[in-house]
Amino acid sequence: MQASITLQSLIEERIKAVSFPKEPNNLYDPLNYFMTLGGKRTRPLLTLLGCDLFGKPGENALNAAVAVELFHNFTLIHDDIMDEAPLRRGKSTVHTKWNSNIAILSGDVLFVKAFEFLSNNDVKYLPQLIEVFTRTAAEVCEGQQLDMDFESREDVSIEEYIEMIRLKTSVLLGAALEMGAIIGEASAEDKRWLYEFGMNVGIAFQLKDDILDLYADPEKFGKQVGGDILSNKKTFLLLKAQKLASNEQSERLNHIMKNSAGDEKISAARELFDELGVKELATERMKEYYQAATAAMQNIRVAEEAKVDLVEIADYLMNREV
Amino acid sequence: MQASITLQSLIEERIKAVSFPKEPNNLYDPLNYFMTLGGKRTRPLLTLLGCDLFGKPGENALNAAVAVELFHNFTLIHDDIMDEAPLRRGKSTVHTKWNSNIAILSGDVLFVKAFEFLSNNDVKYLPQLIEVFTRTAAEVCEGQQLDMDFESREDVSIEEYIEMIRLKTSVLLGAALEMGAIIGEASAEDKRWLYEFGMNVGIAFQLKDDILDLYADPEKFGKQVGGDILSNKKTFLLLKAQKLASNEQSERLNHIMKNSAGDEKISAARELFDELGVKELATERMKEYYQAATAAMQNIRVAEEAKVDLVEIADYLMNREV
Repeated sequence: MQASITLQSLIEERIKAVSFPKEPNNLYDPLNYFMTLGGKRTRPLLTLLGCDLFGKPGENALNAAVAVELFHNFTLIHDDIMDEAPLRRGKSTVHTKWNSNIAILSGDVLFVKAFEFLSNNDVKYLPQLIEVFTRTAAEVCEGQQLDMDFESREDVSIEEYIEMIRLKTSVLLGAALEMGAIIGEASAEDKRWLYEFGMNVGIAFQLKDDILDLYADPEKFGKQVGGDILSNKKTFLLLKAQKLASNEQSERLNHIMKNSAGDEKISAARELFDELGVKELATERMKEYYQAATAAMQNIRVAEEAKVDLVEIADYLMNREV
Repeated sequence: MQASITLQSLIEERIKAVSFPKEPNNLYDPLNYFMTLGGKRTRPLLTLLGCDLFGKPGENALNAAVAVELFHNFTLIHDDIMDEAPLRRGKSTVHTKWNSNIAILSGDVLFVKAFEFLSNNDVKYLPQLIEVFTRTAAEVCEGQQLDMDFESREDVSIEEYIEMIRLKTSVLLGAALEMGAIIGEASAEDKRWLYEFGMNVGIAFQLKDDILDLYADPEKFGKQVGGDILSNKKTFLLLKAQKLASNEQSERLNHIMKNSAGDEKISAARELFDELGVKELATERMKEYYQAATAAMQNIRVAEEAKVDLVEIADYLMNREV
């Protein structure tokens, strides 16, 4: 992963160098704050590697990579308002540290900045880059809306859930790679397969998230294990359990979700999930998407050695413990 | 104004044809609702006329014009949340009819759509169009932030106020015209003068708004005369009155703004403003910007006949009673 480490530091440098005006400080201070909270910068790394894969220097895709990361952070700022989240990466969210109006508006201007970086690319790539970027941005909004809609619905199917996480999370991984491939001048087919690779990795990644939330090692996890259960979040695990439960189990599950709290709620839910084997089913489903990703990667017509970094990242995202 | 009437119906048609997906309906229904609330469509008309001015068919700039109108409506949806406005064009605002989260997210996706329309232009114009669009979008956000900042400040100067309305309102009129001029293949100088024309018309337009809010004929105005006074809005009139007031008048003004209400507050403020002559000063200042706009227009190297429609629109905006 030598190449990705070099590229990662390039990204970090370039993101640090993104300059926002000083005034109005209530508009731009939140962005300087939020952009230094860190994060793994996975998406921009994918953009650089997506370019590098086709034999062009990853650096060529730096502006597109920064655009992807700014866009991702814009969605986080707005999502945090909607989810009333007090913390992001262990620090206060923008709407908590300032207020919701400021979070709306500084999110908006971050989105503008993302487009600005996107447009700082050779004009020959612009129509394609913008097409991928705007299509994906709309899909991410759709995914967030579905996620909010699901909160008040009791009949969410597993397939609807998968479609929601595909839109909310996975298409952006696919698009990050595809934008790199556009600048790497990949063929239309290779671009499509790389997008498929990223999207499938993304779904697997989110299923892994669902599993870790309840089954992570508390020593390593860094945040509360069982948070999704406490907030009654409709994850793959819960939806699958609801689907498979017998009448008796269904009543128990309802009772746990409605009437229990704290550690007791978490362990009761885990016990029932274990009876139903939903962790294994989620892991199986995750592996299916991972395999679909691998198959897509195999279709890409470049030397296998060139694929090593991307395959390693996918493996890491699948096998992580945090 | 024959040309503009034809162009205006083209715009209305094209905006009606903007299609949003059906699902998720909580994301897209608000946009279908909001885009049919109407409005004068002044900004997209400016884009078409800005193209037409240089001898190219205004229709060529239709996608850019729709982009400008979608962007403007995006800012209205988000501003309405921040201003807690219940009504827009006499109908419920999106955050009132649905909720704030939906208004944030459907605003975001409308912004995406604006970029999509913008990018549906010949690639040779894209870098310039995007440069103007992103620069202006950031400025509009800055203007809105300043406007919010002013609410809690007691030391806003007239010059700061003018800068705020320049950013919040006027630059978009300039940019709408400039984008038309880009597609009309105007010279760099002509583009700059046309932008100056629009920006100055925009400031004059906003000063006219301030004046009308207190001095309009209630029969014709269509909304409450004196609304700005009732909400203690820091308009040009109020800021100028605060600046010119003697100690005694200053105390009276404070007393009126803090302790009076309803029609009494409005007529007491108007009486004091009349003593200080602030309506005349605002009108004078408005005329200065109007003259700057006219001077900018004179510098544009096209036949005077070609300028008629734009000059008429500027005149209309200055002389309107609503």
